Amino acid sequence: MGCLKQQDIYVRGVRVLDLPHFEDYRGSLSVGEIGAQIPFPVKRFFLTYGVSNQVRGEHAHRTLEQVLICVYGSLKLTLDDGFRRQEFLLDDPSFAVYVPPMIWGIQQQHSAHAVLLVLASEHYDPTDYIRDYGEFSSLCK
Amino acid sequence: MGCLKQQDIYVRGVRVLDLPHFEDYRGSLSVGEIGAQIPFPVKRFFLTYGVSNQVRGEHAHRTLEQVLICVYGSLKLTLDDGFRRQEFLLDDPSFAVYVPPMIWGIQQQHSAHAVLLVLASEHYDPTDYIRDYGEFSSLCK
Repeated sequence: MGCLKQQDIYVRGVRVLDLPHFEDYRGSLSVGEIGAQIPFPVKRFFLTYGVSNQVRGEHAHRTLEQVLICVYGSLKLTLDDGFRRQEFLLDDPSFAVYVPPMIWGIQQQHSAHAVLLVLASEHYDPTDYIRDYGEFSSLCK
Repeated sequence: MGCLKQQDIYVRGVRVLDLPHFEDYRGSLSVGEIGAQIPFPVKRFFLTYGVSNQVRGEHAHRTLEQVLICVYGSLKLTLDDGFRRQEFLLDDPSFAVYVPPMIWGIQQQHSAHAVLLVLASEHYDPTDYIRDYGEFSSLCK
């Protein structure tokens, strides 16, 4: 879904990031520079994999910013700002989605062996998570 | 090759990093915190994919530090400090290799659809590359 353009996005603060990518006889390369394509200093990254017929995410962050890239396979990302909800197909290592704070996120419909890379603006902090949609929705109002 | 231990490494400055990983009914998650597992501020990342029967790398960096993780599939990483050469099988998203400056690196024998994630300590700088092994070898002496 690298064809999705910024003007198509209607969830607050979400941005699509087209990472520079290069192809030659050796294969493909996608790159992100911190401060250019990636709009925050990266303090942490994580990878999710081996997800089959399961739903991941289902929380929001109070302050954390993230960039999500499906680096192998595909998955459906749902983002919700408390008022509007939008779905994104992540299926290309050169297509990234920036998720600001206070966005409810869900990942599902992972293809076999899909791998998701998440770059995060802060170290792990369990107090930053909002895991109850009702609480999230109230805080958005 | 997550079983490879630091005491097995004999190429100068190279370190194996076991990333914390968690498994539950939703699948697997591996994580790296900058300043903890990842020993430098990350200024750039890149992904290589769609590499079939090709060799990538074949250069060294004067100052760049990198962490390499094969996030899908497997590949063989060869690292050379100008005096000693060692091979690493990268086949696990929770197994990372730290590569300091002035190490010649080669990636080959990629499995079908293998994806390599590289975290880098600096923005892209073409003058930091050494692409001639003879020059590299001379500089190591």
